[in-house]
Amino acid sequence: MDKLFFDLRATHNPHRWYMPLSNAVCVGPPGNMFMFGGVGLGAAVAAMERTCGRPVVWATAQYLSYAKPPSVVDLDVWTPVQGKYNTQARVVGHVHDREIFTVNAALGERPSELSRQWLEMPDAPKPGDCEPAEHWRGGGEGLHSRIEVRVAKGRYGADRNGQPEPDGRSLLWIRPREGFAVDAPMLAIMADFVPSGVGNALGRNAGGNSLDNTLRIRRIVPTEWVLCDIRIHGVHGGFAHGAMYLFAEDGELMATASQSLIVRIRERADER
Amino acid sequence: MDKLFFDLRATHNPHRWYMPLSNAVCVGPPGNMFMFGGVGLGAAVAAMERTCGRPVVWATAQYLSYAKPPSVVDLDVWTPVQGKYNTQARVVGHVHDREIFTVNAALGERPSELSRQWLEMPDAPKPGDCEPAEHWRGGGEGLHSRIEVRVAKGRYGADRNGQPEPDGRSLLWIRPREGFAVDAPMLAIMADFVPSGVGNALGRNAGGNSLDNTLRIRRIVPTEWVLCDIRIHGVHGGFAHGAMYLFAEDGELMATASQSLIVRIRERADER
Repeated sequence: MDKLFFDLRATHNPHRWYMPLSNAVCVGPPGNMFMFGGVGLGAAVAAMERTCGRPVVWATAQYLSYAKPPSVVDLDVWTPVQGKYNTQARVVGHVHDREIFTVNAALGERPSELSRQWLEMPDAPKPGDCEPAEHWRGGGEGLHSRIEVRVAKGRYGADRNGQPEPDGRSLLWIRPREGFAVDAPMLAIMADFVPSGVGNALGRNAGGNSLDNTLRIRRIVPTEWVLCDIRIHGVHGGFAHGAMYLFAEDGELMATASQSLIVRIRERADER
Repeated sequence: MDKLFFDLRATHNPHRWYMPLSNAVCVGPPGNMFMFGGVGLGAAVAAMERTCGRPVVWATAQYLSYAKPPSVVDLDVWTPVQGKYNTQARVVGHVHDREIFTVNAALGERPSELSRQWLEMPDAPKPGDCEPAEHWRGGGEGLHSRIEVRVAKGRYGADRNGQPEPDGRSLLWIRPREGFAVDAPMLAIMADFVPSGVGNALGRNAGGNSLDNTLRIRRIVPTEWVLCDIRIHGVHGGFAHGAMYLFAEDGELMATASQSLIVRIRERADER
């Protein structure tokens, strides 16, 4: 198994894992940082794959509460159904007795010749030809300092105000700066960049709080960069819904993702 | 609240509901019918909305086991987080002590002027101008006899073999035959028509067993028919991943849905 972006540790019990939090897996303003949602899903995916010895096919995280560094997240893996080819699993992430997230998932691999993708990679300039994007809050020492983003379409960061993207779409090339492999946990982290598309779609300094993070893995192939095709489908009643398609550099559709979130408009600089 | 498509009953405990199963909410071959997955998600959505007094924003069902008529499904609603505007909820559906599904969800409505959709309804002939579609197994007395489907693009039913749809897409107009309102539980049932798109995309008599059913509700408006834009994104390793966009007749994007499923190819007539 590849080296992980976060500090997931085994215990005497193969169904039980824990992850000490440092700023390196957190986001938010200095002094008030919290675990990035995608790290919660990613850690759950890594824990399940190691407990079950099978690859994740689908996983959905429900986010219930925030975890702040330096607390330690306990991840308990439950496997209510274990079949010949599939496992249906659940991971509860908690700090002390407070639930932070629950992930429901299916893992497995079946004998099948069928391998097709109907979604083609959109045209995009190569990562080296795209401008590096700075996170609107600045990298600092948090998670965003460890993830490199290049913008192939749309806007990311601070220059979104007044410039809405008519089709609600953005194309980001994303890679981990420290050379970690692009595996299922890394795709889970990238999938939680859907909220960055809300500001781009609205043309406002907006983002949001994820209610969930849903990841569907088709086929992972070696790649350095991942092209994340983010679509914001709609907003209403204070919530936004969006999706992401994740392609390898060679055009392979590796995964799809979706999420719903609470929309937050940051009108003032100190809210950003 | 509108009259429901299924027989959800209240108890003395507002967090506890039950649903006796009849063939009318089931699918599958005669003598071996089982509850349609979308009915499980729909019943959970209806139970949560009634328990919490708030509309569902997002809900994901994890399917663990089958429920057969005439068993009774108990639905227990848990609300781990209840905020000023949002509730985060969970519904466990079980028969006796056997878990059939778990639904994780968020409910609520926030004060917000923002109402936008970036996804436009695709061009499609009106329902009256589309051919009525027969389910490949025939309606019988099951759920498919109660849901009317008209095909605006792609193939549905028995004529898919050898005729793959190059873009993996199908457009179905769907309505309940008995005049039930199109509400969140009804959209949950329609969302579970994603597997019908797999046979259309592959050009095989294929379908699948849902691992999950994920529904995101943007805004529900009065409509008789719903245009279901089904996209199969890819298959690999025996699993398929797809999505659906659900539009009202006036073009309003009411909801989006997605799911992953085990692909089943039915080569022989008796497997169909």
